[in-house]
Amino acid sequence: MTTETNTALAAALAHLRQNRDRHLRELDEFLRIESVSADPTKTGEVRHAAQWIMLELATIGFEQVALHETRGHPIVTAAWLHAGPDRPTVLVYCHYDVQPPDPLAEWVRPPFDPRHEDGRIYARGVGDDKGQIFIHLKAAEAWMASAGRLPVNLRIFFEGDEEVGSEAADEFIGEHPELLAADLCVVSDTGMQDDEGTPAITYGLRGIAYFEVRVSGPFQDLHSGGYGGAIANPARVLVEMLAGLQDEHGRITIPGFYDKVRPLTDADRAASAAVPFDEEEFREQTGVPQLWSGEEGYTYAERISARPTLDINGIWGGYSGEGAKTIIPAWAAAKFSARLVPDQDFHEIERLVVDHLRRIAPPEVKVDVRIIHGGAPALTPLDHPAVAVAARALEAAFGKAPVFLRSGGSIPVVAALRAHVGLSSVLVGFASPNGNFHAPNEWMPIANLSGGMEAVVHLWGELGEMTADQLGRR
Amino acid sequence: MTTETNTALAAALAHLRQNRDRHLRELDEFLRIESVSADPTKTGEVRHAAQWIMLELATIGFEQVALHETRGHPIVTAAWLHAGPDRPTVLVYCHYDVQPPDPLAEWVRPPFDPRHEDGRIYARGVGDDKGQIFIHLKAAEAWMASAGRLPVNLRIFFEGDEEVGSEAADEFIGEHPELLAADLCVVSDTGMQDDEGTPAITYGLRGIAYFEVRVSGPFQDLHSGGYGGAIANPARVLVEMLAGLQDEHGRITIPGFYDKVRPLTDADRAASAAVPFDEEEFREQTGVPQLWSGEEGYTYAERISARPTLDINGIWGGYSGEGAKTIIPAWAAAKFSARLVPDQDFHEIERLVVDHLRRIAPPEVKVDVRIIHGGAPALTPLDHPAVAVAARALEAAFGKAPVFLRSGGSIPVVAALRAHVGLSSVLVGFASPNGNFHAPNEWMPIANLSGGMEAVVHLWGELGEMTADQLGRR
Repeated sequence: MTTETNTALAAALAHLRQNRDRHLRELDEFLRIESVSADPTKTGEVRHAAQWIMLELATIGFEQVALHETRGHPIVTAAWLHAGPDRPTVLVYCHYDVQPPDPLAEWVRPPFDPRHEDGRIYARGVGDDKGQIFIHLKAAEAWMASAGRLPVNLRIFFEGDEEVGSEAADEFIGEHPELLAADLCVVSDTGMQDDEGTPAITYGLRGIAYFEVRVSGPFQDLHSGGYGGAIANPARVLVEMLAGLQDEHGRITIPGFYDKVRPLTDADRAASAAVPFDEEEFREQTGVPQLWSGEEGYTYAERISARPTLDINGIWGGYSGEGAKTIIPAWAAAKFSARLVPDQDFHEIERLVVDHLRRIAPPEVKVDVRIIHGGAPALTPLDHPAVAVAARALEAAFGKAPVFLRSGGSIPVVAALRAHVGLSSVLVGFASPNGNFHAPNEWMPIANLSGGMEAVVHLWGELGEMTADQLGRR
Repeated sequence: MTTETNTALAAALAHLRQNRDRHLRELDEFLRIESVSADPTKTGEVRHAAQWIMLELATIGFEQVALHETRGHPIVTAAWLHAGPDRPTVLVYCHYDVQPPDPLAEWVRPPFDPRHEDGRIYARGVGDDKGQIFIHLKAAEAWMASAGRLPVNLRIFFEGDEEVGSEAADEFIGEHPELLAADLCVVSDTGMQDDEGTPAITYGLRGIAYFEVRVSGPFQDLHSGGYGGAIANPARVLVEMLAGLQDEHGRITIPGFYDKVRPLTDADRAASAAVPFDEEEFREQTGVPQLWSGEEGYTYAERISARPTLDINGIWGGYSGEGAKTIIPAWAAAKFSARLVPDQDFHEIERLVVDHLRRIAPPEVKVDVRIIHGGAPALTPLDHPAVAVAARALEAAFGKAPVFLRSGGSIPVVAALRAHVGLSSVLVGFASPNGNFHAPNEWMPIANLSGGMEAVVHLWGELGEMTADQLGRR
């Protein structure tokens, strides 16, 4: 690193430390916006979050700050392209929408009223993913405020549909490649390795295929005494169909489901084994009596990241009130989703699942299957030049070398950017691995926020020392 | 029948006809009381219904009108015992509580706002069972108003917990045999054979065992990407457990479940075959694409009345809102119930079910099973002398001989009266077999109400011609 860069970097880091209290207040303001993308009544709040970001971007000094209408929620783009044509251009991707906050009763404090306690911030979206957007905003602010410039050309691509499947973002990528043109995408929507400050680079993501199935029988609920035995119970049919989708070890029984699954290589298995995985700690985090043995022949770490899985996300139908209602319910429904791995094609999996459910639907009921959303799995080659740079930046900020992970989660745009724009992504994320992402009392350590900002400041500094060609401009 | 009885009977029938419009207005008033026994917020309304009945009984001329506190809702008793000691004493049993009205949105008009249309009354409880209580009140009123007396000694036993399992009534029967002492119980909580005025005597009832099972896993909902594959999904475990309770034909797989089931005799099968059963009409009533073949070796009519069945009554857990929430739900739960036949013991079945669920519960989750309520099955011998009398009374009122049915439903006190007080019951009911008992838009033909009142007037007349000994006083 040149002395000039070093001096500028030190000034940017100093700016972060001097403005820390203000930053936390601003983050609380951002977290109060109820940007729940799945909830149609929150459409205005989701837009409000996009507008809040736009004002931040403009204030920091980004140009071409734009809100793009989509068939979903708005997409925000911006750019600062004055680092020089030979410098790398980096696209930053995050999402500003959040998961629904229910069950509300289980939150210690309301989900959109941030609580600072024991070095943590509790709020819906603080880890997934508004806190990470904020890290990027403040890292850019630090460079711009202290040096008047960024070391790299930076483009911004923030979406508001990630928690509902990123379909609008997927379309946007196909339609606006010019706004996303870059040498590398940096994605911050993942976590660190632990809460002891060990950073992580995620190099694999699972894809997803999400479904809703509804089994309908009679016009209306029927008396189970008068009809039980001669009318197929839709709830029974549903549980039979769902139970039949997996064997007792969780292995998915849908014909063709595993056909395209890329077998784990020895290198994959060695990388997975190298990451510390404390079974007892994992169990305690979740509170289950015992971990699930699951698919045979794979470790826990492999099963939650590198193998496909299927989970029922919700089920409902009939009477759930107090006491007894002796009915055959008119219908019962469930949401379920499969996590996919390379090289499973989510469109193909959707077809297989729908065909299978239609095939096994008994004639006494009507079975409707809806595809809710899908996303492709992704892998970043570990020898991509940006991976080493990101590792140095993380080590500089956190004082520890990062581990390399495959995540069990899904970020649909990563595969779409690869497919449509040819972009490689490096996933550098700062959430806590235990941070209740899709659960009540989501939280993030304040140390991750400040460490994350410093790591991104370092990352732009490190990447700015490279030429675009060195980074592998296509 | 003596001339004197004939004259009095004619006067009572004339009273019914003269007061028909007033009766329908009074029934509407009774139906407006929201006596939903399962709903803790309706406790006051249930009591209000009991008090409404007490005022009616006292006005008609019943004595010893009493409200009995129980651990459930109140029980109402009353008596008129001046027919003479050699005349039969009859106990009338009905229930004044009703099923929960949800789903409310599916009612054409609110469930407690009676609608008269096309010769029917639509309202929650009109068939099950407030309309039938009303039939008994007005039949007694007709005798008392026209003749100043009843032909038999009559006792009243109306409860408010039938729709939640009649446990309080069961206890009451054991504790107050003196208030229930009689030669015969007449129960009106069943239906007619069709809506063409064919009456029915129900001689068999199924018992019931009702359960709630909850499968709990993690402390809270987990991200299905981060944990899917290593944490057992409680909803998956639940659907597997539930699906495993029956084979594809609905035959229950719980060990020991069928041990005590009394095989159908040739006479049972012949009686069942003698009752018209139109498969296509049954299918159209319910709106299902196809009837369920169900348990092999039995007809539809046998399966809905004389064979044990199991139905899931409700299931819930996880996310059921719009779009997608990618979670492993913290828990999932279901209500399910088995209909029992002679000689299954519901206490034994409860034990078998609970033991079985505990045995098959996998160690990765916690499984809680609650027994919600139970009731014994019952059969009335077809050669009981009261059966022939009731048949004559029904034919006199409806102009058609009744059919003899085994009902698939459950009326727990029938077995309890037999066990604790030694009483035989004759089930003479007037609801429509298609009357949406436990569903939205419950209805009853107005002709059944007037026919029912006339039939009961005839029944007391006929029974009053007998001595208690002829009826088989024990």
